[in-house]
Amino acid sequence: MAQDKFIGLIAGISYIQDADQLEKYSTDSSGYEAALPCIVVRPVTTDEVVRVVNACSDCHLGYTIQGGLTGLAGGARPDKGDVVISLELMNKIEEIDTIGGTVVVQAGVVLEDIQNAVQESGWYFPLDLGARGSCQIGGNISTNAGGNKVFRYGTTRELVLGLEVVLPDGTVLNMLNRVIKNNTGLDLKHLFIGTEGRYGIVTRACLRLFPKPEARFSALTGLNSFNDVTLLLKEARGKVAELSSFEVMWDNYLLKASQSINKPAPFNGQYPIYVLLEVEGGVEGLEEKFNRFLERQLESGLVADVIIPQSEEQAKAIWKIRDASGETMAKISPAVAFDIGIPLKNMQTFIEETINALEEQYPTAVNLLFGHLGDGNLHLTTGCLTPEQLLPVEELVYKLTGKYNGSITAEHGIGRIKKPFLSVSRSAEQIKVMQNIRKLFNVNDLQNKARVID
Amino acid sequence: MAQDKFIGLIAGISYIQDADQLEKYSTDSSGYEAALPCIVVRPVTTDEVVRVVNACSDCHLGYTIQGGLTGLAGGARPDKGDVVISLELMNKIEEIDTIGGTVVVQAGVVLEDIQNAVQESGWYFPLDLGARGSCQIGGNISTNAGGNKVFRYGTTRELVLGLEVVLPDGTVLNMLNRVIKNNTGLDLKHLFIGTEGRYGIVTRACLRLFPKPEARFSALTGLNSFNDVTLLLKEARGKVAELSSFEVMWDNYLLKASQSINKPAPFNGQYPIYVLLEVEGGVEGLEEKFNRFLERQLESGLVADVIIPQSEEQAKAIWKIRDASGETMAKISPAVAFDIGIPLKNMQTFIEETINALEEQYPTAVNLLFGHLGDGNLHLTTGCLTPEQLLPVEELVYKLTGKYNGSITAEHGIGRIKKPFLSVSRSAEQIKVMQNIRKLFNVNDLQNKARVID
Repeated sequence: MAQDKFIGLIAGISYIQDADQLEKYSTDSSGYEAALPCIVVRPVTTDEVVRVVNACSDCHLGYTIQGGLTGLAGGARPDKGDVVISLELMNKIEEIDTIGGTVVVQAGVVLEDIQNAVQESGWYFPLDLGARGSCQIGGNISTNAGGNKVFRYGTTRELVLGLEVVLPDGTVLNMLNRVIKNNTGLDLKHLFIGTEGRYGIVTRACLRLFPKPEARFSALTGLNSFNDVTLLLKEARGKVAELSSFEVMWDNYLLKASQSINKPAPFNGQYPIYVLLEVEGGVEGLEEKFNRFLERQLESGLVADVIIPQSEEQAKAIWKIRDASGETMAKISPAVAFDIGIPLKNMQTFIEETINALEEQYPTAVNLLFGHLGDGNLHLTTGCLTPEQLLPVEELVYKLTGKYNGSITAEHGIGRIKKPFLSVSRSAEQIKVMQNIRKLFNVNDLQNKARVID
Repeated sequence: MAQDKFIGLIAGISYIQDADQLEKYSTDSSGYEAALPCIVVRPVTTDEVVRVVNACSDCHLGYTIQGGLTGLAGGARPDKGDVVISLELMNKIEEIDTIGGTVVVQAGVVLEDIQNAVQESGWYFPLDLGARGSCQIGGNISTNAGGNKVFRYGTTRELVLGLEVVLPDGTVLNMLNRVIKNNTGLDLKHLFIGTEGRYGIVTRACLRLFPKPEARFSALTGLNSFNDVTLLLKEARGKVAELSSFEVMWDNYLLKASQSINKPAPFNGQYPIYVLLEVEGGVEGLEEKFNRFLERQLESGLVADVIIPQSEEQAKAIWKIRDASGETMAKISPAVAFDIGIPLKNMQTFIEETINALEEQYPTAVNLLFGHLGDGNLHLTTGCLTPEQLLPVEELVYKLTGKYNGSITAEHGIGRIKKPFLSVSRSAEQIKVMQNIRKLFNVNDLQNKARVID
C-alpha cells in the first residue's frame, strides 16, 4: 500500500524492483549479513533526490543511501524492506577549474574517474585507496575516507572545499564553496563529512586539487625497532617535503602478504619492521634528494637496509605487498580487521600489550600488523579464529584501544559493525550531542537508521 | 541584586570590578565602539569556567568570551553590562609530545608562546599572523585564524587535533583527540572552530606540530599580469614542495606600504604586481633548488624580475612591507579593510569590476590590494573616505563578492561587524541550520549574543 503510493510519488525516476537485481544492493564489503531492500531508486539529479526523500517521508518508509558498496563497516547494508537510494547514476564530473585547481562532481562519480579526469588537465586529486575503481566520492565523503597519503594531503575532509547536501526534510543545502578560506561562521560541511548519511545525503562536492606530480619514487627500508620508525618519520617529514607515504609493515605481515600473492618476501624477513616510503613532486633533483636522504639514514644506522626499486614495475611489486591486506586476510579467515588510531607515543606499548594478550588468550591465532604510521593509523588483522572468537577478540582489542586514548576506527567508519563499541572512543556527552544533532536533521530517523548513533 | 548573587556563586575565582581596569576589556582591535562590562571573571581551570557559565545562567546574565582582544570583527567586544569571561589566566602549555608531534595547551596561551615552546623541542607550529605576540590560541580557534602559510599547512582548523569545550549548559566536552585520523562519526570539534563562541567555550586544545624547518628562504618577484601570478602559483606548488608562502601585492600597495614604514619601494614600483615567495624545509639543497626555480621562471618570462635577499635582515625588510598593512591603513583612515575569499579564476574580473566601481563612485578614495593568493584570500583596503562613505563602500564590495561566489570573510570572521552581510555568503537555509544549532547549545542566547547569527 505504502509502496504503491511511493512508486506514484517517484514517477519518472529510475528504479529497480526485480528481486534478482536487488541482490546486488543487499550489503556492502563488510561481510555483514545481506538484507534485501524493497526497491532501489536511482536519481540522476539533486531535485530527484529531494523527491525520493520526500516520498519516503510521506510514506514513512525507512531508507538507506548507497554509493559504491565498498564500505567495511556495514553502513550501506539496508534493513530488510528498506528503500535504497543509490547515487550510482549521479556520475557526472561537472566542472574542472584549471586555474584555481578545483573540480565539482556529483556524488556517484567513481574515485578513479575523478583521478583520471583531473590528471588529463594537469592536476591531481590525492585521495587514493584500494577500492578506487568502484568506490564513489559520495561514500568517500560520508565516511571521510583516508588512504596512504593522509599525512601530506589530509583525509577526504581536508580535500572537500564545498558540498551540496539534501537534508531528510527535503531542504537542499548548497554549500559548493570553492575557496580554501571561508570563515563565515559554522563550516556546515563538516556535519556531513564522516557522519555516514545520518544527517543528510551528499549530492555534489567541490574538491581541492594539487598540481600533478612530475615524478614519484619509492623505497622499502628495513629497521631494527619501532622506536627507529618514529625517528625516521620525523627525519623524513622534516627533510623531504615531497614525502607522500610512510607505510609500516611488521615482519609477519610482510611474510604473509608476500606469500598470499606468491612473491618472495623482500629481505627474507630478516628485520622486525619495514617502512615503505614514497615521495612525489617536481622531478628536478627529486630522485637524487631521496636517495641521498636514504643513504644518510643508512650511514646513521637508523635504517638497517634499503631496497630502491630500479623500475616502475619493481616499485609496483613492492606496493602490491603493502596492498595485499585483503588477500592476506582471506587466507586466515575467520579474521577481524582492526583499523585503529593510536597516538604514536603509545603505539609500541599498545602493540606489545595487545599482542601479548591475544597470544595468551588465542594461542593459535595469527596477528598481522601494518599501518599508515604517518597518521597514527594501525591496521591489525587477527585471523585463524573460530566464529565464536570474533566478538571477544574485538572486545579485547577495543578495550585496550580505549586505554591508550585511541580511536576504534581511523578510516573505515562506525557503520553498523562498530556501533556497539562507540563509547570506547566517545564520551556519553559527545554521543548525546551527536544524537541531538541527528534529531535536529533526521527527525523521524528514517534515513540510514541504526548506523553510528541512535 | 543579580550581581551580588553572581559574585557569591563565583567565590574563589579571580575577577575584576574596578572601573579603570574594566576599560581594557571593553572592545577588541576592530575599532568597534567600546562598551564596559560589569565584571571580568578570569578562571584558571576548566572547572572554574563551568562554574562561571553556570553562575551566568543562574543569574540570567549575558556574557562575552575574550582572548587576546586582537580580533577585527567586534566579536570580543561585550554588550554594556555583560559579564566578561577572559581566558587570559588559562595560559599553560600542558604537554609537548615530541614523538607524535602534538602539544596540549590551555585556551589562553599566547600564540607566540606556543611557537617558541615547541621550537625548543625541535618542532614547529606553523600558524602565524601579525598579532602572534598577543592573540591567544582559544581566539585563533574560535575564529579559525588563517595567516601566511595556509595553503601548505591549512588554517587553524587543520592544525587542531582535539578540543575541550565547555557548553553553555555547563557540560564539558572532552575531545582532546591526539591522532590525525579519527573517524568515529561526527567530528564535533568543527562545531566550535570558527563559530566565535556561539556554541561553546574552547578551554583546551591538542594541536598538530610539524618538524622544525632547518632553513627558510624568501624572494620578491615582479610580474607583468595577474594571469602570470596564477601560472606562477601552479608552477611553484608543483615544483617546490617546500613552498610555504605565496603573498601577492599590487603595485600601489607596495608603494604605500613602503612609504608608511619609510623604506624605498623595491623595483621602484615598475611592475603592476608582485609575489613574495617563501620556502621552508630541510636545508640540504633547498637554497639551490629555490634559486634554480626562480631562474627558470625568469628565463621563461613568467617572472619579469626577482630580488633574492642576501641576508636574513634583507628578507625581514621585504616581509616588513608585506606586514605593514596596519600602518598603511592608519595613513589612509577612515578606511575599510576587506578580507575576502574569491575563487582564483574570478579574481581578476572581480578586482577590475570592484576597483572600477569604487573609482567611479569614490574618486578620491585610495584602494590598496594585497593577499594570500595561494588561498584565494584577497585583502582590499579602501581608504581616504568620509565616515559616511564606510557603509556604502562595504555594501558595494560585498555585493560584488556575492556575485563572484566569494566569501565576505576569509580569515577575520563575522563577529558583530559583518553580521549584517552574512547572507551574501550564506543561503537562508544555511543560516537557519546555524541558528538551530545555536538554539540547541546556547538555549537562552546568553553566550556571545549578537555575533555571527541570532
